[in-house]
Amino acid sequence: MTVTPEFFNVQTVQQTLALLFAHALLRPTPETCPAAHALGRVLLAAPTSPIDLPTFIRSTVDGYAVRAEDTFGASQSLPAYLTCVGSVPMGAAASITIQAGQTAVIHTGAMLPPGANAVVMVERTQTIDETEIEVLSPVAPGENLVQIGEDVRQGDKILPTGHRLRPQDIGGLLGVGINSVEVAAAPRVAIVGSGDELVPPDQTPAPGQIRDINSYTLAALVQAAGAQPQMMGIAADTPDALFALARAGLDQADVLVMTAGSSVGTRDLTRDTINRLGQPGILQHGLAVKPGKPTIIAVCDGKPVIGLPGNPVSAFLVARQILLPVIRRLLGLQETRPVSVRAVLAANIPSTTGREDTVPVRLRDADSETLAEPIFGKSNLIYTLINADGLVTVPLNSSGLKAGTPVEVEVF
Amino acid sequence: MTVTPEFFNVQTVQQTLALLFAHALLRPTPETCPAAHALGRVLLAAPTSPIDLPTFIRSTVDGYAVRAEDTFGASQSLPAYLTCVGSVPMGAAASITIQAGQTAVIHTGAMLPPGANAVVMVERTQTIDETEIEVLSPVAPGENLVQIGEDVRQGDKILPTGHRLRPQDIGGLLGVGINSVEVAAAPRVAIVGSGDELVPPDQTPAPGQIRDINSYTLAALVQAAGAQPQMMGIAADTPDALFALARAGLDQADVLVMTAGSSVGTRDLTRDTINRLGQPGILQHGLAVKPGKPTIIAVCDGKPVIGLPGNPVSAFLVARQILLPVIRRLLGLQETRPVSVRAVLAANIPSTTGREDTVPVRLRDADSETLAEPIFGKSNLIYTLINADGLVTVPLNSSGLKAGTPVEVEVF
Repeated sequence: MTVTPEFFNVQTVQQTLALLFAHALLRPTPETCPAAHALGRVLLAAPTSPIDLPTFIRSTVDGYAVRAEDTFGASQSLPAYLTCVGSVPMGAAASITIQAGQTAVIHTGAMLPPGANAVVMVERTQTIDETEIEVLSPVAPGENLVQIGEDVRQGDKILPTGHRLRPQDIGGLLGVGINSVEVAAAPRVAIVGSGDELVPPDQTPAPGQIRDINSYTLAALVQAAGAQPQMMGIAADTPDALFALARAGLDQADVLVMTAGSSVGTRDLTRDTINRLGQPGILQHGLAVKPGKPTIIAVCDGKPVIGLPGNPVSAFLVARQILLPVIRRLLGLQETRPVSVRAVLAANIPSTTGREDTVPVRLRDADSETLAEPIFGKSNLIYTLINADGLVTVPLNSSGLKAGTPVEVEVF
Repeated sequence: MTVTPEFFNVQTVQQTLALLFAHALLRPTPETCPAAHALGRVLLAAPTSPIDLPTFIRSTVDGYAVRAEDTFGASQSLPAYLTCVGSVPMGAAASITIQAGQTAVIHTGAMLPPGANAVVMVERTQTIDETEIEVLSPVAPGENLVQIGEDVRQGDKILPTGHRLRPQDIGGLLGVGINSVEVAAAPRVAIVGSGDELVPPDQTPAPGQIRDINSYTLAALVQAAGAQPQMMGIAADTPDALFALARAGLDQADVLVMTAGSSVGTRDLTRDTINRLGQPGILQHGLAVKPGKPTIIAVCDGKPVIGLPGNPVSAFLVARQILLPVIRRLLGLQETRPVSVRAVLAANIPSTTGREDTVPVRLRDADSETLAEPIFGKSNLIYTLINADGLVTVPLNSSGLKAGTPVEVEVF
């Protein structure tokens, strides 16, 4: 009855991702989506505007459409007198033509009538009677107007490939008549749990058992990233049971994530199972991070397979480091500006060179700055993440960060 | 045929929200949600842990369960010899009791057997034969263990009321056996468009017409905030048609948003319609912001009614300033740390005291800092928002911001 230490072939996160991307061609799957329902989706083609927007010259104010030259020199004491020949209807072509000395009532957004080349704001006019007004200050040609194509021009590329659509982008697409867009299908991520100590969270664990939370935390992380989790359940700790579940997951998904369970036996089983799933199999066992060292990276039949450590904190943090970049690539997502806050470290964080540490922190507003308070705890304490507002990374070549150091906190 | 300027009773965003909240009791509607599907939902009750987590003492390493006192003084040259009496099973209560001079194989996550009070890592041991091992360094009592309740204690409040659930929170809830949570029902926001110049975006506008994008941009903004948009369509510009649509919207939703159309006629119609919807009716007409001044704020029969300007940029920015705080209150959301980035202004932004300006900016990484480049444009150019990464606010009492000023960019 013995136990042997695990063998690791440790690489950095960057090296690991490069290795993974070299072995798996992670291409987004295009699908067509109505633009009105494309919030949060990632564009796979850069749409160009089929029209000039606006398509006609519009007024930006309420007032009077004029020939600018008729207002030149106008002032409070010496106004220009214009004859009002009608009113421009909203939502229709202007049928009146403005001649010299004439004007027409126009509202914000209405089409400039032929003959006119500017609009005088109502606040700069006086009404004399039903047909005559005074203009109290001059306007230049083009004043208070939006020109044809001033918002966007026909043929302009309006949004880049790889862009995640925001509310205003939906409006911009619809505004030029683009009613459907080519976006990435949500990548499917199969999640397989294993470990004899795990029970589903709605069951009461017997002594020695714990609830499986990794599958659910990972599913939520996957969902928040714009992918689709496929919960495969918890495999019994036998080679056939684990292989069957992993095989089914890999077949129906783009990525397979296995949480390896805690025991050496389960971890060995995970390793053997992954190597049975397809070629080239395991590329690497060990990640130069803390927590999360016992991570397995594999590609089987062209699909990434990630064996995460069983500890919930390690599983969550490594999933952010390895699984999220895989999902971003499967989405074709180009922008990667992380949501981060600049803060000052409130306590020392010890570390060791040669490994990247991730430490949960709580943010607290102090007098003139935001403080990041490290939450130290064993990597199986999920509440270190729940009590945190974000993460601080201690770089590979640092032996730690001192209190008072400015840090970027990746908010989660 | 004349046109008259609009009358405004301008107030700041803060004053406006205070007025609105004084007249409308915006309380979240509780509903029960399975914890596994509660990502992004807002808690209305602060859950407490029904159990100690973990419920038993667990090993954090692979190795040997020992009585710490048996290892005191052990070293490479003078190891402690222990008799291995078995192996602790994963996922079951330990049945072996460790006596003086004895040890048992234990894996990460397994239950500490009775009699033992520490675990020696396998790396600090040597196997002699099937039943005897050498311990090469001492362990203290409690070493390499997680104690009962070390993650979270029974009765601890684990998450605060008003908290939006993140992936790790889902794991934390499920880990202690909380399988359902009380969250805020998604607030329903009815959106009514009006304006004779508007056509639905899938129609080709005739001369003088434009596509209605406000309803869709607002719907996406509402959806992104965790609320549920209810698209009521575009009302014909008659009192009865607009009233019927507004009435239906208000009846089935928690908030009514009307985009007022551009013409004075439509804006008057919107005002009259809102005043017919219920008491006290319009509280205020005019917001001390640019763009977005001609905003109408009302409460009708206890529900907020917001009349947004017709210009798409104004409508979008005022919705962020007024509608999003209303939604947050209806969600019971307590945390309001905005997603912002610190940047340096790349150009002057002129403004006027007494009004809060919102200016879209593009972010650009320069040598040692992030630059925020203002995107100037008329408030009816939706592409000023699409080409932007975020917003800079010029405060009420500022007459502008100079290039080089550090600013907080609210990223969108």
